[in-house]
Amino acid sequence: MFELDRRLQEDCLDLGGLELCRLLLMNDRTYPWFILVPERPGITEIYHLPDRDQWQLLRESSALARAMAMEFNPDKLNIAAIGNLVPQLHMHHIARRSSDPAWPGVVWGGPRGAPYECTEVEWIRVRIGDQLERFLRTGPSGG
Amino acid sequence: MFELDRRLQEDCLDLGGLELCRLLLMNDRTYPWFILVPERPGITEIYHLPDRDQWQLLRESSALARAMAMEFNPDKLNIAAIGNLVPQLHMHHIARRSSDPAWPGVVWGGPRGAPYECTEVEWIRVRIGDQLERFLRTGPSGG
Repeated sequence: MFELDRRLQEDCLDLGGLELCRLLLMNDRTYPWFILVPERPGITEIYHLPDRDQWQLLRESSALARAMAMEFNPDKLNIAAIGNLVPQLHMHHIARRSSDPAWPGVVWGGPRGAPYECTEVEWIRVRIGDQLERFLRTGPSGG
Repeated sequence: MFELDRRLQEDCLDLGGLELCRLLLMNDRTYPWFILVPERPGITEIYHLPDRDQWQLLRESSALARAMAMEFNPDKLNIAAIGNLVPQLHMHHIARRSSDPAWPGVVWGGPRGAPYECTEVEWIRVRIGDQLERFLRTGPSGG
């Protein structure tokens, strides 16, 4: 039985479920920072997933990346499965700008920023949700 | 025409080519740290690759992850496409142990360790190469 890790529950806002993953928003206004968590119990590494789930994770990750590129116009996306502190498999997707406070370093281990206002979360949920739905109807590269 | 980024050339040892990617070894004995670089010119994000190349990148990434788990018995794998300093798409695969100097933090931005001896590189090339070949004959999860 899948249960979202307690630390992810505390740090993130739940934006809803995709075919495989829960889509979370890190509650930190500094960066557009989304996390995909495959709803499969006991998985800590991507290669632990059966092939079909690996393909679907890639599909959802690339659709999310495209949606983030569209909405936030980042200089670079940072995509990572780390899990040293939270072993439950989860994949970070962060829109980075050369003007952001951690650039060109990584964001993990840095200071936490202010949480979102409710209206901001709703805006992000709707905008990213619409783009995601569009890109998930096509292939991962839209082709 | 694909050309490996100069900084990757300087920091890494080239272990050879897979179907899509060059396989590099970060020349730092602190961590077993491999990098996959899809040999496609001008690509900076995973979702920029055509679908077929995305699937192949995942296939090579998961085979490498399994080979690393087998050879190095890590506590966690860290897999990431960051690219804030080197935008050419490259995917880090790092075998982490709770006893390593950066744990539980990430390794990027930390101090560089000592380079490998030639005999060590040969050992790694052979061991990882054999496992990779084996896992690439099967699907990404071996199923």
